[in-house]
Amino acid sequence: MRLSRYFLPTLKEAPSDAQIVSHQLMLRAGMIKQEAAGIYAWLPLGLRVLRKIEHIVREEQVKAGAVELLMPTLQLADLWRESGRYDAYGPEMLRITDRHERELLYGPTNEEMITDVFRAYVKSYKAMPLNLFHIQWKFRDERRPRFGVMRGREFLMKDAYSFDVDEASARIAYKRMFAAYLNTFSRLGLKAVPMRADTGPIGGDLSHEFIVLAETGESEVFCDRKLVEMAAPGHDLSIEQLEGVFNERTALYAATEEMHDAAQFEAQTAEGDRLSARGIEVGHIFYFGTKYSVPMKANVQGPDGKEAPVHMGSYGVGVSRLMGAIIEASHDAGGIIWPDSVAPFDVVVINLRAGDEAVSAACEEAVARLEAQGKDVLYDDTDERPGGKFATADLIGVPWQLTIGPKGLADGVVELKRRATGEKLSLSLDAALELLTK
Amino acid sequence: MRLSRYFLPTLKEAPSDAQIVSHQLMLRAGMIKQEAAGIYAWLPLGLRVLRKIEHIVREEQVKAGAVELLMPTLQLADLWRESGRYDAYGPEMLRITDRHERELLYGPTNEEMITDVFRAYVKSYKAMPLNLFHIQWKFRDERRPRFGVMRGREFLMKDAYSFDVDEASARIAYKRMFAAYLNTFSRLGLKAVPMRADTGPIGGDLSHEFIVLAETGESEVFCDRKLVEMAAPGHDLSIEQLEGVFNERTALYAATEEMHDAAQFEAQTAEGDRLSARGIEVGHIFYFGTKYSVPMKANVQGPDGKEAPVHMGSYGVGVSRLMGAIIEASHDAGGIIWPDSVAPFDVVVINLRAGDEAVSAACEEAVARLEAQGKDVLYDDTDERPGGKFATADLIGVPWQLTIGPKGLADGVVELKRRATGEKLSLSLDAALELLTK
Repeated sequence: MRLSRYFLPTLKEAPSDAQIVSHQLMLRAGMIKQEAAGIYAWLPLGLRVLRKIEHIVREEQVKAGAVELLMPTLQLADLWRESGRYDAYGPEMLRITDRHERELLYGPTNEEMITDVFRAYVKSYKAMPLNLFHIQWKFRDERRPRFGVMRGREFLMKDAYSFDVDEASARIAYKRMFAAYLNTFSRLGLKAVPMRADTGPIGGDLSHEFIVLAETGESEVFCDRKLVEMAAPGHDLSIEQLEGVFNERTALYAATEEMHDAAQFEAQTAEGDRLSARGIEVGHIFYFGTKYSVPMKANVQGPDGKEAPVHMGSYGVGVSRLMGAIIEASHDAGGIIWPDSVAPFDVVVINLRAGDEAVSAACEEAVARLEAQGKDVLYDDTDERPGGKFATADLIGVPWQLTIGPKGLADGVVELKRRATGEKLSLSLDAALELLTK
Repeated sequence: MRLSRYFLPTLKEAPSDAQIVSHQLMLRAGMIKQEAAGIYAWLPLGLRVLRKIEHIVREEQVKAGAVELLMPTLQLADLWRESGRYDAYGPEMLRITDRHERELLYGPTNEEMITDVFRAYVKSYKAMPLNLFHIQWKFRDERRPRFGVMRGREFLMKDAYSFDVDEASARIAYKRMFAAYLNTFSRLGLKAVPMRADTGPIGGDLSHEFIVLAETGESEVFCDRKLVEMAAPGHDLSIEQLEGVFNERTALYAATEEMHDAAQFEAQTAEGDRLSARGIEVGHIFYFGTKYSVPMKANVQGPDGKEAPVHMGSYGVGVSRLMGAIIEASHDAGGIIWPDSVAPFDVVVINLRAGDEAVSAACEEAVARLEAQGKDVLYDDTDERPGGKFATADLIGVPWQLTIGPKGLADGVVELKRRATGEKLSLSLDAALELLTK
């Protein structure tokens, strides 16, 4: 992508109402534009990262056996009356009346609708276990939206819903998502710790939040340091392995502020392992059994021929919120430092003298060869001065910067910089391309 | 994807309120479920096709130089007051009030918001030509939603917006999208004819609808038969070539019912070339100049240093509607016949005796080898009887059916059926796989 034909409106200064660093950097890097309180347009650079995060979240759901569908953003109020949540949900629910005076709402979550989809088609235990997920825009009418995409009103969420014939298999489904979440956040370059959580308005008796540790986190969290360093569990786990992954982690202390018990923390955790830090919630999973299937009459016939309500869980990831969390966890004074897996581009090729034929030819060759290897390349072909180009490249956080100028070219060298470390290499174009595509 | 672990709730009979064949078949094939009037959940099979259509639409926009962003579904009423359309739009606009009594609306289109994005960042002619597009859910509160996804209320639309420094370059931008649309519909397996159209509430003086011909089309259209058979123009066209593509087509008569002039049709078109048929609108493009940039003060500095309002066009494709149009144009008594480019799966592998070890091993080998070649494969591993499996495979319209049973396997053969023609080949598994992946 040539920068001269792209749309990357970077800003020198963040607007003063942007209070946290991820919000400031997303505005400065031309990733988002506010269109109303808590409602953002995703500019091209922001959309690229959003799609990469979404892609990883989706892949890990599919690897865990979940099947993707897509429910609409608007829902009938009557569906929520069946579960009793239409009146219970409060002012965060955006209620809408259409031209025929029918009551709709903008879905803040989808337990009712997925239960409706399930009960319409599934009648027998033979169709289970079943896990259906979608990645769709949601709306929660926050009283005070702030922190950019971290507490927006219109936000992108992945929500999965498991259906099982009994509690024992539903708890396995829960643990399968627990493991999938560890894999997901690890691929996103995040250290996310599962913490036992309150079930809140979703209901149920088993729930974990996944918390990314970041100095600027929204709330205080307490956990055993060992949890932070555990490796992701990987795929295709047997039920025994799933139990192991779950038990190994839940045996260690981890709690958000609201669930914290200082005495228990001390009793359970060696002093050197006691970590208190700030955290950002990026995922939340629930087992709630028959809370929705009973009032909504989602019954299935079991192997014994008897009808019984299906056992359910739900599993949310804040896809758009993750972008803020990643930036909070990974930035420096110069700007964003994207993990390779979600970077908007793999490499930015910086042309130090856009009018120079030899330099431009070398840049275009580099771009073509990188793209031929499947790399996403941003080519800064503008006539901006070098200092401005370097500042932009640092700000938008592309993992590699390949700089080509007339002086180096005369000596047969280009410069390759790793954004995360600042390390610079002076080497031949061939060597640089080999390093970038190996 | 194993069918036993998938979610494909096919129906024997379509509900009686489904009036047209695409709606009936989408319900029967388990692609959509109605959640409210004109609001649908996209079940896994439907979502697969939706994503494939979206992917082709996106690729053709990018090839034509458009840059993708993503605007939110909800918009501020005040933005629409700037253009005067908030009051003018009528009851199809879904108006919403949030908890702080701020007026919002669910975007039916995005001229105002994209103009707002543009004016926030672009001040000079140097940033142009610029074409920004997004693919986002829209809502139009149709008085009488019907025909499934063909006239839904919540629907997926691609809308692009061009920005140019003057009318001459804006008209080139228009012709570039005109050509991109011809390429898009051709890749989707459709014969779409551009027809001069009324500009309606979008405004402007130049507009074309792209109409797919289908017996069940919503309206009558009239055109020169030669338009139907013209090949897609291809990519990387010069301005002269773009003009040629545009002029060659617009020289021939083509009009929707509301623009039709019988006398002109007869004068302009040889009798044997006069085609009157039924059609479905799948795209609509507009040049409207400064209609929005003047009231919204989207001004840019020209090469002469003077400020002037930017010239704009907008370009819509009904992504979800296209699915209905494709089915209307391509089905038979057995079900849907997907063009290869948008088929939910490339091949369905049908296991005729799911309990048989040798048959299952052969099926699994076939699936693995096809997937290794990048094919999307549905594996019918259920214990349904063969007749039911064949009926389902025909209904869901996957282009190739590879059937493996114990009898054929003993003779060293499998059966390969092409859905579109019904042609069947009996051949070795190796030969079948070679044919499918060549």
